[in-house]
Amino acid sequence: MNSLITRIEGHIDTLSKFTATPGKGTTRLTYSKEDRLARDYIKEKMKEYGLQVREDGFGNIFGKLEGTLEDAPSVLIGSHFDSVPNGGSYDGPAGVIAGLEVAALFAENQLTPKYPLEVIALIEEEGARFSGGLMGSRGITGLLSEEDFKNLRDKDGISPEEAMVKIGLDPSLPKKRDFQTIKAFLELHIEQGPILEEKNIPLGVVEAIVGLTQFEITVEGQAGHAGTTPMERRSDALVTAAKMIAQFPTLAIEEGDGTVMTTGQLHVYPNGANVIPKTTVFTVDIRSSKEEHIQTVIRKMKDLIESYNGDGIHISARQQLYMRPKTMNQDILTLLKQTSSALDLPYCSINSGAGHDAMVLSDFTEVGMLFIPSKDGLSHCPEEWSDSRHLANAVQVFYETAKKLTEAEEK
Amino acid sequence: MNSLITRIEGHIDTLSKFTATPGKGTTRLTYSKEDRLARDYIKEKMKEYGLQVREDGFGNIFGKLEGTLEDAPSVLIGSHFDSVPNGGSYDGPAGVIAGLEVAALFAENQLTPKYPLEVIALIEEEGARFSGGLMGSRGITGLLSEEDFKNLRDKDGISPEEAMVKIGLDPSLPKKRDFQTIKAFLELHIEQGPILEEKNIPLGVVEAIVGLTQFEITVEGQAGHAGTTPMERRSDALVTAAKMIAQFPTLAIEEGDGTVMTTGQLHVYPNGANVIPKTTVFTVDIRSSKEEHIQTVIRKMKDLIESYNGDGIHISARQQLYMRPKTMNQDILTLLKQTSSALDLPYCSINSGAGHDAMVLSDFTEVGMLFIPSKDGLSHCPEEWSDSRHLANAVQVFYETAKKLTEAEEK
Repeated sequence: MNSLITRIEGHIDTLSKFTATPGKGTTRLTYSKEDRLARDYIKEKMKEYGLQVREDGFGNIFGKLEGTLEDAPSVLIGSHFDSVPNGGSYDGPAGVIAGLEVAALFAENQLTPKYPLEVIALIEEEGARFSGGLMGSRGITGLLSEEDFKNLRDKDGISPEEAMVKIGLDPSLPKKRDFQTIKAFLELHIEQGPILEEKNIPLGVVEAIVGLTQFEITVEGQAGHAGTTPMERRSDALVTAAKMIAQFPTLAIEEGDGTVMTTGQLHVYPNGANVIPKTTVFTVDIRSSKEEHIQTVIRKMKDLIESYNGDGIHISARQQLYMRPKTMNQDILTLLKQTSSALDLPYCSINSGAGHDAMVLSDFTEVGMLFIPSKDGLSHCPEEWSDSRHLANAVQVFYETAKKLTEAEEK
Repeated sequence: MNSLITRIEGHIDTLSKFTATPGKGTTRLTYSKEDRLARDYIKEKMKEYGLQVREDGFGNIFGKLEGTLEDAPSVLIGSHFDSVPNGGSYDGPAGVIAGLEVAALFAENQLTPKYPLEVIALIEEEGARFSGGLMGSRGITGLLSEEDFKNLRDKDGISPEEAMVKIGLDPSLPKKRDFQTIKAFLELHIEQGPILEEKNIPLGVVEAIVGLTQFEITVEGQAGHAGTTPMERRSDALVTAAKMIAQFPTLAIEEGDGTVMTTGQLHVYPNGANVIPKTTVFTVDIRSSKEEHIQTVIRKMKDLIESYNGDGIHISARQQLYMRPKTMNQDILTLLKQTSSALDLPYCSINSGAGHDAMVLSDFTEVGMLFIPSKDGLSHCPEEWSDSRHLANAVQVFYETAKKLTEAEEK
C-alpha cells in the first residue's frame, strides 16, 4: 500500500509539471505542448505496466492488457488528462492514474484476465480549448460526428486536426469505437464539492450525474467612439450582455434543487478602452439533477434573450451540449459497494454535480464511478487537492472490481 | 489642389495597409510590427518633404523645417498614428498627413519660416496597448513620468521599453520636451460624430474638448467548479462586474449634457466555460463637457463599487487618466476662422466629444484644432471614412495659418 501511495504521488507530481502556467496551477489545453508531454508520460507508464498502447483519431490514449477470450469486449478504466485554465492537479489525472495503477496491480500479481483490461486517457473533457467539453467520450461513442469535429475551431481559429498534427498526432486514425468492444467503464474522479470531506467519508459511490447543457451566446451591437456617440444612440453589445448575465443567478435560484447556471467565459470585440463594444460572446452552463429544471432555465434564458433583441442589438444562442441526468449501472454500483465493505472502506452514495466522461459512456455500456474527497470542496483552481491515501483506496476497490469484471485469474 | 488630393489618398491607402487585421479595419498597436512599417513610411515622407527627422525616447516622430531665428520655438502640426483594434484609416493618420502636406506646400512654395515648422506623429493616443491613452502628448509634456512609463505593461506583461527595443527604437533618447521649444500646436482630426455631415459643413473649428477620465476596475471573487458550487456559496467576479456594467448607462443619462460612460475592454480570468470567474478586469471611460458631471459620475460609480464589496468579493478602482474639459486658444481660433473665410470655406464652431493630443498640449502652448466630417458619424470601426477633399481643405487652412504663425516668407 505504501509503494502504491508513493507511485500515485509521483504520477500527480510529474503530470502537474506539464502546465502552461507554472506556479499558477495546471493549464493543459488539448493538443498543446503540455498535452504532448503528459501524453508521452502516460504512454511510457502504460508500456512499463505491460500494456499495448494505441491512440485514436481524436488523440485519446488506450493501453490494453489482452484477455484470453478471443474478440472479447474490454473493461475500461480511466478518465481525461486535459485541464481548465489555471486548474488543479487532480481533475482528470486522478482517474487516469487510478487506471494505470489497477494495471500495475494486475502486472504485479501476474493476473491473466479473460476479458481485456484497457486503461484510457481521454482528451478535451473540460472544453477549455474547443468548447462543448466531453469531446473524447463524445467522439468514441459517435455523439460528436467526424464532420462536427473537423469544423471546431479554438479562439485563434485553429482546427482540432491542425492542432493534432502540430504535436505529431494522426487525425486519420479510426475515431468512433465499436460498442461491441466495450464491456464496462470505471471512472474515478475527485468530488469537486464539499460533501465527502464534511461527512469525513473516504469514498463516494456515484448514483447519478446531473444533466448539463452549454450554450454560446453572441450579442451583436454597433461599434462606435466612446466619446462621440451619445448614450441614446448606442447599441452596446457588452451592456446588453451584462444585463443578461446579472439576471442568470436568479433563474437558477428560482428552480432550486441544486440547479446552477454559470457564465465562465466571455470575450469582448474589439475590446478597446474607448470603443463601444460591437460584439460580446459568452458561454452559459446550466446543470441540474432534474431535467425539467434544465428545460425551464433554458426557456427563461431564451425569453430573456428575446426581450433584449431589437434596437440595433441582435442576440443568438447556439446550444453546444445537452446531456440528460444519468443514473449509473445498478450491478456495478452493487459490486463497488460490496468491494468497499469487504475492504473495510466506509463509503456513501453521492450524486455528481459535474459532468463526466462516465455520463456519456453510460448510454453505451455499464458504468461505475467513484469519488474521493476534495480539500475544502475546491476544484478548477490551483488549490485543488485530494489525499493520495484516498486515491489508493479507490485503486484497491477498482482493482478488485476489475478482477471480477474481467474474470481475471492468477497464473 | 488635385495633386494634393491624390497625394492625401496615397498616404491614407498606404498607411491603412499597415494593419494586423487585413480586411477587418486598421489594428495598429503602438510598438508593433505595423507601427514600425507606418513609422518608416512617415519618416521617409518627412525626408522627401525636406524635414530633418528625429525620434524621442517614447518613439514620437518629429520632422523639422528649421527657421531663420536662432533657438526659436516651433509651430507643431500633426496627430497620432496608432489605432484602436479593428479601427479605421483616418483617426490619427488624417492629422499626421495634414502635417506632412503643410510641409510639402512649404517646400513646393520654397518658403523660409522665421520660426521652425515641425510635423509630429505621436504614439499611443488610443491607449489600446498600454491603457490610459494620450501617451505621446502626456509623455512630451511630462504629465506621464518616465517612471510611470517604465512601469506600464500590456496585456501580455510586456513593458513599453521592451516593446520599443523589439522594433528597433531607443528608449534612452530624451523624453520630456522643453516648453520653450514650442510656439503653437495645430491638429486636424476627423469629427468621429454626425454633426458636420448633418449640417453639410466641410470644416469644424473646435472651441472646446470634453473632459475625460479612465478607470481600471478589478473585481476579485472565488473560482470554483461550475457544476459543484451551489449558487448561494458563490463569489462570482463576472456576475458582480455585470451588475455594475448594466447600471453604468443610467449614471451617464442621469447627468445629461452629453455625458457618456463606456466599458470598452473586459477580461475574465481564468475564462473557462465551466469555471466560476475568479477575476474580472474592465475599463470605465467617462466624458463630459462639464467637469461637475464627470465628478458626479465618478462618485456614483464609487458608491456602486462600495455596495458590491463584501461577501467574498473585493473590488478596486484605479484611475488611469483625468483631463479637465479644455478650451482652445482664442487667437488661433480667430486665425483659423479668418483663414477659412478668406479661402471661401464654410465652417462652424464645434465641441469635441473625444479626447485628443491637442487637449493635453493646450495646457502648455497655444492650440488650434480643425474637424472634418465623418461619414455616417462612424469612427473606431472599419467603416470610418472621410472625404479627401475635406482633408485637402483643412491642409489649405493650416498652410495659411502656419505661414502666419511661423512668419514664413517666400524666397
